[in-house]
Amino acid sequence: MAVMNRQITLAARPDGAPKESDFRLVESPIPEPAADQILVRSLFLSVDPYMRGLMNEGGTYREPVPLGGVMIGEAVAQVVRSNHPQFAAGDIVQGMFGWQEYAVSDGQGVRKVDPALAPISTALGVLGMPGMTAYFGLLEIGKPQPGETVVVSGAAGAVGSLVGQIARIKGCRAIGIAGSDEKVRYVVEELGFDGALNYKPPAQLHEKLKGLCPRGIDVYFDNVGGYVTDVVVGLINPRARLVICGQISQYNLKRLERGPRWLFQLLIKQARAEGFLVFQFADRYAEGLRQMAQWLREGKIKYRESIVAGIENAPCAFIGMLGGENIGKRLVKVAEL
Amino acid sequence: MAVMNRQITLAARPDGAPKESDFRLVESPIPEPAADQILVRSLFLSVDPYMRGLMNEGGTYREPVPLGGVMIGEAVAQVVRSNHPQFAAGDIVQGMFGWQEYAVSDGQGVRKVDPALAPISTALGVLGMPGMTAYFGLLEIGKPQPGETVVVSGAAGAVGSLVGQIARIKGCRAIGIAGSDEKVRYVVEELGFDGALNYKPPAQLHEKLKGLCPRGIDVYFDNVGGYVTDVVVGLINPRARLVICGQISQYNLKRLERGPRWLFQLLIKQARAEGFLVFQFADRYAEGLRQMAQWLREGKIKYRESIVAGIENAPCAFIGMLGGENIGKRLVKVAEL
Repeated sequence: MAVMNRQITLAARPDGAPKESDFRLVESPIPEPAADQILVRSLFLSVDPYMRGLMNEGGTYREPVPLGGVMIGEAVAQVVRSNHPQFAAGDIVQGMFGWQEYAVSDGQGVRKVDPALAPISTALGVLGMPGMTAYFGLLEIGKPQPGETVVVSGAAGAVGSLVGQIARIKGCRAIGIAGSDEKVRYVVEELGFDGALNYKPPAQLHEKLKGLCPRGIDVYFDNVGGYVTDVVVGLINPRARLVICGQISQYNLKRLERGPRWLFQLLIKQARAEGFLVFQFADRYAEGLRQMAQWLREGKIKYRESIVAGIENAPCAFIGMLGGENIGKRLVKVAEL
Repeated sequence: MAVMNRQITLAARPDGAPKESDFRLVESPIPEPAADQILVRSLFLSVDPYMRGLMNEGGTYREPVPLGGVMIGEAVAQVVRSNHPQFAAGDIVQGMFGWQEYAVSDGQGVRKVDPALAPISTALGVLGMPGMTAYFGLLEIGKPQPGETVVVSGAAGAVGSLVGQIARIKGCRAIGIAGSDEKVRYVVEELGFDGALNYKPPAQLHEKLKGLCPRGIDVYFDNVGGYVTDVVVGLINPRARLVICGQISQYNLKRLERGPRWLFQLLIKQARAEGFLVFQFADRYAEGLRQMAQWLREGKIKYRESIVAGIENAPCAFIGMLGGENIGKRLVKVAEL
């Protein structure tokens, strides 16, 4: 076992898009677990869009990462030493361990991962936070009905790729919006979406999306925001539900972007836009995980991972993910099991 | 009885704010009711913000008024002649009779008004569409809880003035936003709102509203849209509900105005913006009318009417209402009972 713990800290608050110099790789002694604590060694680290907001001074739904603090994030890890009655050395666990190789935890919010169920990395994707986000966001906020048209932006991403597949399982027409032709092919040819389009270039986006949604749009699962969302709103049906899950097009902006005001469209369509955070469904994760695992076993849900090796590459993996370079769930492999 | 029916028709689709020349006063013979029809004589005519959208080529939630067609609108009227089993000559009724002195109707959507309950003009206000809009919009879409802060824009208008009073009845803190100091005084001093502010000039609006809402905003009932709504969104609490009832600041614009994108604010607040049309609660109007009438009798709800005389002045009354010149419900008195 190593003696030092490599960590990625927040070196500077980003001015627009994060740069590698906004992060710092530091080493500190591996901490000792106190009574009722565990020491874990990270295996996979998750990089997710929400982290961008936590780099800003204001934070978002929670306080920001302090300057010099270890970047926040979920990881799948192995328990190295346990002083906690519910965990034993060797257990595979998932928790908010941060961007570091080792972490101590009092077990709060840590859940055991069953390696027999699926590859352990899925505890950060389809069987983790992105999976729960897609499952509860679509079903509980979007409430799709059989035969309805569900459009999802960020369609090839960790959450969006699952949203479209769940929509199909529920008997809906699933249409994806993504940022490259490769992503469009992926969601249609590999994931079975009913259609998809590349939002770049933005010209004719309304006409193209209308062509894919001849009966209008009933549910929109928004990971992206910006002009993509404006176009969707122009095609919603009466009583449409807009699930506001992410706004990644806006996260690197230095000031609020301006766009057309479309609340009147919500009004005349009697439509609803609702923001949500997956945590509001925390008491139902067991149900969501059980269902997602079943669909996975049945082959009804497919997923892809985009894995970068080495904690020193976490900033680069994160920056690339924000820029849309990967398909599926982006992970950082920190250590071998 | 007169022999001619004076009507206001749509002469031209407005280019921005409607002008009197966009309307035309015409005369046509008083129609004869066919079998199962009634002939009514209008007493009061309602002018409402939603009519502005129906003057545009595209319409809104329904088809626009055709060029040369009689302007759409509700009226309180008296039955002159009835070939309909459910109505008798002399009955006071309320229905979509249009901007005209006489109308025939098959009785669809026509309801009898009880003159013993309240002044018959209230069937177009507190005991009519605006009343139902406030009642169901606030309670069913906004779902205010005791102790919460409810903010309403267009606070001195037909709907907004009721929203604040209902919020108070339900144990909420009611804060109004209106367009003049006189309106602000009206809602606080006469209607008992907990506070109100004039949104003109827009400087310091955030700070002023924050001062009136020290515990943040839980429910926003929006009649106005535009920058007023932007300011409110910056002060919403987690799980806030935005009831999108009207967007009068936008109705005369020739193209969509642009404003700051704030969907991310909905997201991190797990908040909801929902558009509604009062018709979706049509099967519950009896309940709403009963409750509003009771509150009226108990003195818990007050209202004001701004009455213009003469159907020839309906365009002017409508244009002025859109410009914010009146307090309370604007009506056109067409004839004496």
